[in-house]
Amino acid sequence: MEKTDIFIIGGGPAGIVTALTAKVNYPDKKITLAREKENSLIPCAIPYIFYSLEKVEKDIIPDEILLKNGIELLVDRVKKIDTTNKKAILSKGKSIGFEKLVLATGSKPTLIPISGIEKEGVWLIEKDISYLKKFKEAVLRAKDIVIIGGGFIGVEISDELSQKGDKNITIVEKSEHCLSKSFDDEFAVEGEEILKQRGVNILTGVVVEKILGKKQAEKVKLSNGKEIKADLVILSIGAKPNIDLLEGTEIKKGDYGGIWVDEYMRTSIKDIFAVGDCAETKDFFTGKSIPVMLASTACTEARIAGANLYELRLLRENKGTLGSFSTKVGDLTIGISGYNEKSAKREKFDYIIGKAEVANHHPAVLPGAKKIKLKLLFSRKSGILLGGEVSGPEAVSEMVNIISLAIQKEVDISNFDTLQISTHPFLTSSPTAYPLIKAAQMALSQIK
Amino acid sequence: MEKTDIFIIGGGPAGIVTALTAKVNYPDKKITLAREKENSLIPCAIPYIFYSLEKVEKDIIPDEILLKNGIELLVDRVKKIDTTNKKAILSKGKSIGFEKLVLATGSKPTLIPISGIEKEGVWLIEKDISYLKKFKEAVLRAKDIVIIGGGFIGVEISDELSQKGDKNITIVEKSEHCLSKSFDDEFAVEGEEILKQRGVNILTGVVVEKILGKKQAEKVKLSNGKEIKADLVILSIGAKPNIDLLEGTEIKKGDYGGIWVDEYMRTSIKDIFAVGDCAETKDFFTGKSIPVMLASTACTEARIAGANLYELRLLRENKGTLGSFSTKVGDLTIGISGYNEKSAKREKFDYIIGKAEVANHHPAVLPGAKKIKLKLLFSRKSGILLGGEVSGPEAVSEMVNIISLAIQKEVDISNFDTLQISTHPFLTSSPTAYPLIKAAQMALSQIK
Repeated sequence: MEKTDIFIIGGGPAGIVTALTAKVNYPDKKITLAREKENSLIPCAIPYIFYSLEKVEKDIIPDEILLKNGIELLVDRVKKIDTTNKKAILSKGKSIGFEKLVLATGSKPTLIPISGIEKEGVWLIEKDISYLKKFKEAVLRAKDIVIIGGGFIGVEISDELSQKGDKNITIVEKSEHCLSKSFDDEFAVEGEEILKQRGVNILTGVVVEKILGKKQAEKVKLSNGKEIKADLVILSIGAKPNIDLLEGTEIKKGDYGGIWVDEYMRTSIKDIFAVGDCAETKDFFTGKSIPVMLASTACTEARIAGANLYELRLLRENKGTLGSFSTKVGDLTIGISGYNEKSAKREKFDYIIGKAEVANHHPAVLPGAKKIKLKLLFSRKSGILLGGEVSGPEAVSEMVNIISLAIQKEVDISNFDTLQISTHPFLTSSPTAYPLIKAAQMALSQIK
Repeated sequence: MEKTDIFIIGGGPAGIVTALTAKVNYPDKKITLAREKENSLIPCAIPYIFYSLEKVEKDIIPDEILLKNGIELLVDRVKKIDTTNKKAILSKGKSIGFEKLVLATGSKPTLIPISGIEKEGVWLIEKDISYLKKFKEAVLRAKDIVIIGGGFIGVEISDELSQKGDKNITIVEKSEHCLSKSFDDEFAVEGEEILKQRGVNILTGVVVEKILGKKQAEKVKLSNGKEIKADLVILSIGAKPNIDLLEGTEIKKGDYGGIWVDEYMRTSIKDIFAVGDCAETKDFFTGKSIPVMLASTACTEARIAGANLYELRLLRENKGTLGSFSTKVGDLTIGISGYNEKSAKREKFDYIIGKAEVANHHPAVLPGAKKIKLKLLFSRKSGILLGGEVSGPEAVSEMVNIISLAIQKEVDISNFDTLQISTHPFLTSSPTAYPLIKAAQMALSQIK
């Protein structure tokens, strides 16, 4: 039987970052990364393969980064894991033994039982280059596109596809607004507005009941009885952890169907770790399981696992995951870290809100000035920052990362109020009205 | 004698923010702000009055913000302060009594004894609208402009004036590089390169010895003997605290000539505070006096003073000032918070460096991708972040603010390595190579 020291299953960002981190921390160990697909790809850029990326192949993460770091690459499917004998069985029956195993098997698109979903012209968000190449060709040919699910993938795809104005694009979203899983309504509608201005047809509070047509999709039938022309249907309603390999093992599952892990990404079985979409994620404040699947979260988990495979080197200070994320619709960036009002209410937090709407230049009459809109949530009694949402020009994506760091370091209202910041007429809001400080001051004024 | 409760001298950002913060914290107190000039202006935008702002008046901070908050505005010069009887004497001999006094008198341009400096055509960076209006007219008429001092004001003015390519612009800088007081050389030269490409003549390691001409400046003579045509000369070598009002008082001065203050911005005399450029600033790590004069720093100080006038409400957690700041040259943003390598060496810190050079999009082939260059300094033994410099597109200005928050919250190397961040293909670097994390990992790998 072939042997390795650290065996990583999965070639996405989680697997790659685990391998690279492990190499830095344990340079003498043999590291093998196994993946089923011919290539690794950047999952977050899938919405941009149609126009922004010249070719789907441009979304490939080059294997060079693994190979030049001395990581062995095995392109094969792992059929089964034998946790007792510490070996993985490959597609043709060959085995590979390991000291440490890291599961980074990612996620699979969620399917829902819509009648007609098997028809030609219905596409999923599959992380597979050859699938995506066919998908791209079909999309470029299509005229009437219906996107089922207005989460950030659905919204980003519509943003990409509506640029040229040569297709009829419809989003069908079950909730009241697109992006409403991530954002409070006042931020969600900003994104919707831009898509509407571009001619995207947004139908909310409704679901697709049937995909009509013979072999090929021709129309979708909605729950309100309406029918919409659709020569191409994209199903983007989310993803679920890929845990097929857990079959026949005693590796524990979490509440959301992912692999249960402790705060160092260790599973319930000794020497086996899980990172990324396949691992269960816990909420930063409540410790509850949450269905967060983001490449950035996956990479953080991978860095923690990669450093801690043989001993606990990199202490995980935080209690869980924030789910910091940004998206882009037209020229508008919308981002969030931590809680929004909806989630804070659901979890019964007693919170106060601070808001700011300011220009990103000062004076605001400088050419190119745009609006930044910010909303921060603080715990009323303890003053701790619970989350923040922000929209505006590109730079607010890094403002999300300020909020993210602030939550992780338990910044409270008065810290923000005395925050030392850098400002510049063309680069930021005024120092007298920097949005994070202004919003914190508004929140602070509500505490007597 | 007229009386007020809180008397603020100075109408710049420091004075205004003190007044507004005091109003929120002590709504029942009468607040009076006295300023000598007809208008308050945004000092940081002075370099942009020539083309970017249609009129110099667009750089005015409207008085409305004070008036609508019930703050009394007094346009008059304060001649003298009587600290014993707690009153200020105004230009025409009238007095105004106070309970609390806040000095926010700002700074004045530094002058150096250059022969011929009194000639027509020699201009200073004066925070005065009517002066700036004449300055703008003269600049627009001028053909050969020499800027003495390549600090950020000099560089920003050259950036503004070189846009149209219709003037001969020369910067004369004493040190080896422009911006070298703020940045390490590898960042400073990036800014210089852009100016050079625009045709700006940058002369370093040399000083202006004489301004030649009859009544009107015609040429400057350099220390290397060369002469350069100059129908307009701008002196931008820095500023010094305006402490004229200290004469005849016992208010203590600091080591750099500013007003000595404690960490709540209280001067050595009871009930008298000082904020902004006129107040002495202390280094965050060493507690030494440092010559930092930034509007953002002034506003932070103003918020601390404004909240703490009658009781200590807003505790100042940090030990001093970081001097976080960003500037823009062409499309390049360069920013810093905390120490750079030069200052860390000077203060004898034992540091390690982490660097990253990555694209701001992922994959990097996405349209519009630009380079982000980052350098972080950590204390070798304690692992604490000491500072960071970054250059790249606009969004790095908020990355400077991440660094600034991180230093204030004593983030160390391993915190960065497990930082939870938000990423997006068009908005940030890849989650596998986010610059702050990548640089921290590089630094971490140097600690065995």
